[in-house]
Amino acid sequence: MGLRIDDTGFGSIRLTQDTDYFCYGTDAVLLADFAARNRHVRAADLGTNNAVIPLIMSVITEIEFFAGIELHREAAALAERNVRENGLEGRIRIVNCDILDVPEHFEAASFDAVTANPPYFPGYAGSGNDRLSFHTARHETTAALDDFVRCAAFLLRPRGAFYMIHRPERLVDIFVSCRNAGLEPKVMRFVCPRTGEPPNMVLLECRRKGGRELKVLPALIVRSGDGSRSEELEKIYRQADSGGIHGLR
Amino acid sequence: MGLRIDDTGFGSIRLTQDTDYFCYGTDAVLLADFAARNRHVRAADLGTNNAVIPLIMSVITEIEFFAGIELHREAAALAERNVRENGLEGRIRIVNCDILDVPEHFEAASFDAVTANPPYFPGYAGSGNDRLSFHTARHETTAALDDFVRCAAFLLRPRGAFYMIHRPERLVDIFVSCRNAGLEPKVMRFVCPRTGEPPNMVLLECRRKGGRELKVLPALIVRSGDGSRSEELEKIYRQADSGGIHGLR
Repeated sequence: MGLRIDDTGFGSIRLTQDTDYFCYGTDAVLLADFAARNRHVRAADLGTNNAVIPLIMSVITEIEFFAGIELHREAAALAERNVRENGLEGRIRIVNCDILDVPEHFEAASFDAVTANPPYFPGYAGSGNDRLSFHTARHETTAALDDFVRCAAFLLRPRGAFYMIHRPERLVDIFVSCRNAGLEPKVMRFVCPRTGEPPNMVLLECRRKGGRELKVLPALIVRSGDGSRSEELEKIYRQADSGGIHGLR
Repeated sequence: MGLRIDDTGFGSIRLTQDTDYFCYGTDAVLLADFAARNRHVRAADLGTNNAVIPLIMSVITEIEFFAGIELHREAAALAERNVRENGLEGRIRIVNCDILDVPEHFEAASFDAVTANPPYFPGYAGSGNDRLSFHTARHETTAALDDFVRCAAFLLRPRGAFYMIHRPERLVDIFVSCRNAGLEPKVMRFVCPRTGEPPNMVLLECRRKGGRELKVLPALIVRSGDGSRSEELEKIYRQADSGGIHGLR
């Protein structure tokens, strides 16, 4: 294990990450911010890794209960440690299980929001990494896109929201998978490295049993011309400042 | 009939439009330009109206044969008149039929490209216009999105290209419909009125039996800050200048 402790830049949250796994990056921050646009009470994060999304959202939202579901035992242990060290045992519960086994741990339709930052690549294609832990986080092996989507559909009450960040290359798979599972894509936002460049990430909000109309938001631009963080990204990182932010900016 | 004759801005093409129907706008120009990125030999345009897309593409591409399919008799007559007046009878053939009846007029898999600027709104929803002709052009009534897509799939040879311009709100319907018909979305480009604004149109290239990966291009910006045409749009309108463009710029 290559442990590393970071200030997250969100309130007083400190995050221990195992660098043998997959350290959190802009995608987790963007997804947490995107999901925080709406008010929710009970949320679940699928494939929570070190619990970065529940931790950030505990600062920037008033969500009362957050379930973080993680397949790998070591990552789940790290997630629990992060929850404990930040004193959030009352709001975040880590469950070490396969997302396919979620029905053994939670009731159907018992959440009003689900977040997921699923593996970006289908099957084993494109993989050059043989460390299983890393492999599972970046590629769809133990849990395919469909499994994430179906799990979210199981957990959500009607009109409940599913938030996901993924790659634009997979957009057709994502839309087909979500509609098939009864999670209708409602709001989409591309994330572009710079103005005028193609997107490298896509943020999506689906609603269980939602109506068929997609709202596309203006693209979120990550960096300005000089390479520094864009004004919007800076604002996203700064939003919990009132809670006493320090580090990682 | 409220006839109006316009220079199109493409070569020496002149276009007679019936203002009781639906005059061509930026969407037709953008679709023609988008479809002209690749080389094709035999193309069909579904719901060709006054043949604006075949006419433009006859200037900016080397397509040898273009079939323009139009349901409404008056629009088809106008399309034929436009083809004749521009001396393009050898390259463009107008067929006055429902797209559902296309199999009676053409062989399956006999085209390598199909273009379509289908009605933008589903069913009768949102319509406040009771003139049938206008209604059919802007709303899905006589031909639903699925019908356009299935017609394109019928006409295209494997790997043949389907080009469409539509509304971002319908993107989920479009992706699901195309994949179901075996036309895999391969290239997508949003069209935004201005930088930083949400898109109001989407350009899509699908390939019959294509692989599952979508390439998203940088957004096409229509107007610059001062409200004038953007550099790229100006270039699109100017591209056939060498062919003797005049008017409508």
